[in-house]
Amino acid sequence: MKKTQDLVSLAQEAAKARSQLALLSSEVKNRVLFNMAEALLKNKATIIKGNKQDLKNAKSRHLGSAFIDRLVLTDKRIQQMANSLREIAQLPDPVGEVVKAWRRPNGLWIHKVRVPIGVVAIIYESRPNVTADCIGLCLKSGNSVILKGGSESLNSNISIYNTLLECMKKEGIPDGAVRLVTTKDRSAIDTLLKLRQFIDVVIPRGGEGLINHVLKVSQIPVIKHYKGICHIYVDEFADLNMAQKVCFNAKVQRPGVCNAMETMLVHKDVAIRFLPGMAKEFQAAGVELRGCPLTCRIVKSCRPATEKDFFTEYLDLKLSVRVVENLNEAIEHINYYGSHHSDAIITDSYENALEFVRQVDSACVYVNASTRFTDGHQFGLGAEIGISTDKLHCRGPMGLEELTTYKYMVFGSGQVRV
Amino acid sequence: MKKTQDLVSLAQEAAKARSQLALLSSEVKNRVLFNMAEALLKNKATIIKGNKQDLKNAKSRHLGSAFIDRLVLTDKRIQQMANSLREIAQLPDPVGEVVKAWRRPNGLWIHKVRVPIGVVAIIYESRPNVTADCIGLCLKSGNSVILKGGSESLNSNISIYNTLLECMKKEGIPDGAVRLVTTKDRSAIDTLLKLRQFIDVVIPRGGEGLINHVLKVSQIPVIKHYKGICHIYVDEFADLNMAQKVCFNAKVQRPGVCNAMETMLVHKDVAIRFLPGMAKEFQAAGVELRGCPLTCRIVKSCRPATEKDFFTEYLDLKLSVRVVENLNEAIEHINYYGSHHSDAIITDSYENALEFVRQVDSACVYVNASTRFTDGHQFGLGAEIGISTDKLHCRGPMGLEELTTYKYMVFGSGQVRV
Repeated sequence: MKKTQDLVSLAQEAAKARSQLALLSSEVKNRVLFNMAEALLKNKATIIKGNKQDLKNAKSRHLGSAFIDRLVLTDKRIQQMANSLREIAQLPDPVGEVVKAWRRPNGLWIHKVRVPIGVVAIIYESRPNVTADCIGLCLKSGNSVILKGGSESLNSNISIYNTLLECMKKEGIPDGAVRLVTTKDRSAIDTLLKLRQFIDVVIPRGGEGLINHVLKVSQIPVIKHYKGICHIYVDEFADLNMAQKVCFNAKVQRPGVCNAMETMLVHKDVAIRFLPGMAKEFQAAGVELRGCPLTCRIVKSCRPATEKDFFTEYLDLKLSVRVVENLNEAIEHINYYGSHHSDAIITDSYENALEFVRQVDSACVYVNASTRFTDGHQFGLGAEIGISTDKLHCRGPMGLEELTTYKYMVFGSGQVRV
Repeated sequence: MKKTQDLVSLAQEAAKARSQLALLSSEVKNRVLFNMAEALLKNKATIIKGNKQDLKNAKSRHLGSAFIDRLVLTDKRIQQMANSLREIAQLPDPVGEVVKAWRRPNGLWIHKVRVPIGVVAIIYESRPNVTADCIGLCLKSGNSVILKGGSESLNSNISIYNTLLECMKKEGIPDGAVRLVTTKDRSAIDTLLKLRQFIDVVIPRGGEGLINHVLKVSQIPVIKHYKGICHIYVDEFADLNMAQKVCFNAKVQRPGVCNAMETMLVHKDVAIRFLPGMAKEFQAAGVELRGCPLTCRIVKSCRPATEKDFFTEYLDLKLSVRVVENLNEAIEHINYYGSHHSDAIITDSYENALEFVRQVDSACVYVNASTRFTDGHQFGLGAEIGISTDKLHCRGPMGLEELTTYKYMVFGSGQVRV
């Protein structure tokens, strides 16, 4: 009972803080963000101490080396967190932007104006830097934020949180503006997900299990940050040299992220010319290939792909490969097996390029470029809270703008409806 | 078991139709819409026959006269449905609109393009004309639609649905594009709300019970069309003559709709001058007043308001009245008791006007105008599927644009990420 009560108060505080946050000037918000960056660097020792505790626990629980690599905080990583906060300070303030304004024949003057969403809850399993990024982005966009990180990084999160909270307090921003859920109890998530009178949106970032659980339990609108099963389709009219460079980049440059390629589709007419060289390059880089029967015939060393492989986000040096009959089969494969994140076609055919971008139902569709560009910075939108794989509210990179909603302000002079 | 199976197939058909719908040209969509309007008029007799059956059932179940008034279809109302479809045909097609486009330093050319959401499910308890409006709006915005209307209007809905479906078939649009759930079983709603692999968004329009139920059960994103507890605050600096006209309009011109005023707030310094005359005018129009203690002292005939009254959407000739200390108390009242729909201030103070529009957390905030203007047509946005009281995806009037999402189309020339 006690635990539930605490979360209710916490959410209530967050809701109470939102009106004050919504009215903060850009000047104050930016000053706090720069101070936060300073404070992170000043408190480096404390933060690394907290992180060491998490690392000790993780090792004693025999969590994998990839996990530990994501968890560990170094001088450099803390510097990156600080840089990220400074960058957020330098982005334009989305709050108050007039998206559109027009006058009606009766003289009503309608303004569609960007405003904060209110209270954002973020449930994440990711690296501790997410804590700082989310606090920075929510402050700048004028939202209260409730953070529920993974229990494995709790001590790191607490030390980052305390450092940043202190900077907000110094400017008189109420505590409710940023709240960290510190209970390790997983049922805390379920409690939060029912507090729709206080929380306006939930952003889950993590594995399939977490996302499905949130969708089932939540009574609050959810913006999913789900997996990226990204495809590149090498068309019959592709420049095969370009295809090889782009596919290699999309798989190998950083395989552990959601915009890396997981499946390569190749038109049957270019498969024999394209696949052997491409496979050789991949294998030299340590990429394990899993192919359809035709791929396996062309590339002898390729192991057969199962249907499940085509649904899998490897986040690793593994790649599913399939030879397709034509453009349509490629599009159908992507819309069926993909996660509607980022998909590309390599082609010199104008017609096929347009067909592909029109018919592939993904947040980002590319012609002749690597899927790795799906990223707030790469798009020129600035820092992001993640990549939405949802269709409502926002798709793709979710940055400051996407952390706002709008309201209509209507200025009249006594108009009544007739 | 059988019933569940049917709904799954129905949703599957809708999902299957969406790619074809998304690619329909404006020309075809508009031709179908005009044909639909014709067909409604031609099939008037059949539609009225279906409606008569519903009316007979409603009467035998002793449903109220207001209910029956909303249910009844007349020549004039069918003409209005037809006009509404023609109007949708004349609105610009939102699909394919480039919302924004820019070039990145590396030459990537990013287009943010409007696309249909996919499959829209609408659960409504409203009048039969909603059936035609929703089919028209979803067709024009390129979405498949699943309709689940109230069982009380089932026969009317079936005859309207069949009429419009025929027009789509004639153009080769697949049946899945518009599906009507005809089972009267309420559990059908729960089945639909779990089919997140096929349905992209659920729009509930109806009473509190329906909305709460949908929120609890749905695993699909929901855009609520909830009640309108709209306020007008008569400020100490109001032009009281204007205030009287606007308040009268907002309450009396059409009391049964969500943008009508339900609570009037009056600054204490103008209460004695304003309330007696205003009350007299309201009472002459048959409006029952429920006031705070101070209001009751000023207007002797006013009955006391309970706290519950301030949370109530009367949709009727009833009005809650409260005298407030100052602007802040008015804003707090609105943000606490209101439904974040539409709220207005009447004032000649520049400062108070800006404070009000900044701080009131509603979809539409007005200065010196009636809340009755919250409406797609009045805003100049065209026909609407309703007024969203949600903050995500869209707020306020939800028309064609709000029935779309976007995708990023990125055109490159071999760019790889470094």
